[in-house]
Amino acid sequence: MAKVTPRHILKLSREEKRKFIDSFDQIYSDCDGVLWTLMDPIKDSGAAVKLLKNEGKKITFVTNNSIRSEKGYLEQFKQAGIETDIDNLVHPHKSILLYLKKIEFKGLIYVIGMTRLKTILKEAGFEVIDGPNELIEENFAVLMMKIFEKYPVKAVVIDVDFNLSALKLMKADQFLRKDDCILISGATDMTLPVGKFGTIMGPGPFLKVLEEAAGKKAKVVGKPGKELAELIMQDESIKDSKRVLFIGDMLEQDVKFGRKCGFQTLLTLTGGTTSADLLKATDPELIPDYYADSLGDFIEFFGSLECKNSL
Amino acid sequence: MAKVTPRHILKLSREEKRKFIDSFDQIYSDCDGVLWTLMDPIKDSGAAVKLLKNEGKKITFVTNNSIRSEKGYLEQFKQAGIETDIDNLVHPHKSILLYLKKIEFKGLIYVIGMTRLKTILKEAGFEVIDGPNELIEENFAVLMMKIFEKYPVKAVVIDVDFNLSALKLMKADQFLRKDDCILISGATDMTLPVGKFGTIMGPGPFLKVLEEAAGKKAKVVGKPGKELAELIMQDESIKDSKRVLFIGDMLEQDVKFGRKCGFQTLLTLTGGTTSADLLKATDPELIPDYYADSLGDFIEFFGSLECKNSL
Repeated sequence: MAKVTPRHILKLSREEKRKFIDSFDQIYSDCDGVLWTLMDPIKDSGAAVKLLKNEGKKITFVTNNSIRSEKGYLEQFKQAGIETDIDNLVHPHKSILLYLKKIEFKGLIYVIGMTRLKTILKEAGFEVIDGPNELIEENFAVLMMKIFEKYPVKAVVIDVDFNLSALKLMKADQFLRKDDCILISGATDMTLPVGKFGTIMGPGPFLKVLEEAAGKKAKVVGKPGKELAELIMQDESIKDSKRVLFIGDMLEQDVKFGRKCGFQTLLTLTGGTTSADLLKATDPELIPDYYADSLGDFIEFFGSLECKNSL
Repeated sequence: MAKVTPRHILKLSREEKRKFIDSFDQIYSDCDGVLWTLMDPIKDSGAAVKLLKNEGKKITFVTNNSIRSEKGYLEQFKQAGIETDIDNLVHPHKSILLYLKKIEFKGLIYVIGMTRLKTILKEAGFEVIDGPNELIEENFAVLMMKIFEKYPVKAVVIDVDFNLSALKLMKADQFLRKDDCILISGATDMTLPVGKFGTIMGPGPFLKVLEEAAGKKAKVVGKPGKELAELIMQDESIKDSKRVLFIGDMLEQDVKFGRKCGFQTLLTLTGGTTSADLLKATDPELIPDYYADSLGDFIEFFGSLECKNSL
């Protein structure tokens, strides 16, 4: 199979630009690495979003990062100059809740995640346990007691947890060994870019450890999860997946997810992927249809479309 | 390559038995799953060790389990009816120390392990840091501060830690990204058998996560590590590795390790490996030369050797 070659949006002919912009009605866009890096807005991302909206494109934001609160997101959007409603943001905590409701889940849930996730689930009426939330004595009997707690857990939910421990995974593993206990995961990123600091480990490696120990695959409601794709595809507004553009900065999380949904894909080089990474990619699942140096390229893009006499 | 078929020690002819017993002078034997299960001695293991010693075999014990203290080991040996000196026991804490001395290590060590390991290293004069030893606030800035501590760490040492956390691994990962920081590991068992409870996750999956994140392989001084093999092979008493028998209950940890050292190998079916597992194994590295239902089989084995008229 010939290697797919992504096109830079500014290297398209005027005709191709027009064709591209007319080929989608709706956009799903990642946030971190596309709209901002850590806390700082990426230059012109707000202006680009405005131009896309002016062209009549509906835009929804999809992040794997539930660490930032919804209030925090509204702040970030504001700082980047993007007007949006929190309903236009999809994040793992929200998707976990949606998924549990979709499958009409009943039963006790063991959660490895942040306090906010547990609160969201409890407030929605789900019965939740967690922990151990303290260090344990270095005593084998204590270890065994902590791992083998006899709760009738029917689902293990795992997302980013700043206090994730081997003990929590060992406990989850035992719950999951029962046939009727399912595993639901939010973010699965193997690494997380943290601006000038480089990268840190993401939640992905720990999910993998749990899946391998328990011999059970997670229902993934973060990108690039099949279950998140299904949740999004059920969104009434998507009639034709080809008329949707997915924008993101990661090959594994964003491009793969966009392709899984049958969307067109656009990669920006402002986050976790360099142009060298993009050149190295050989898996067609991971190669976007289009790329741009940054979302801000849409300013020049639309500019050249408006100059009727150019090209 | 034809599949290696292990021989049951009681199914050898009398001549083969004599040949086998005369073919080694020294024994290295695993403890958990061979001498005892969790806390209870395995029937006749003590008597078998005594018979082997009476035949003039030197026996040294090699465990991946440093959770039990040396005092605890002496208790266990006593309960199993085995007279031995603590010098005849090799365990990861001891091997880590030996290895650091062997390579004449100088510098700061970041330790993920039990308190006892840290104490042993400190008492030997090494400079050690650890932690975080408390749960952290769910705040991104705090997380970053905990991960990116600027200590001039030159070695990360990892062994079983009941309070192992993602945070410790994330921190170790950052230290290891510096070229001059080495990774040293004790036990690497993927799962640990815990008697009637079945199995729990071992330290192996967490070491793998760290190795993959840091892009660096550990020096493994637990079984089946190459570095432990080298430490043991340097033991003056080993002149000819073929004249050593390794006894254990695990294919991956024990048989593979024994083969790595060039020893003969004997598997007992009293621990983590069933006869079905043994039959399923296809990798010649994992198939022992001999097997026995239990170490106690040596009683019948020697009995039949003594009956001069039998067979």
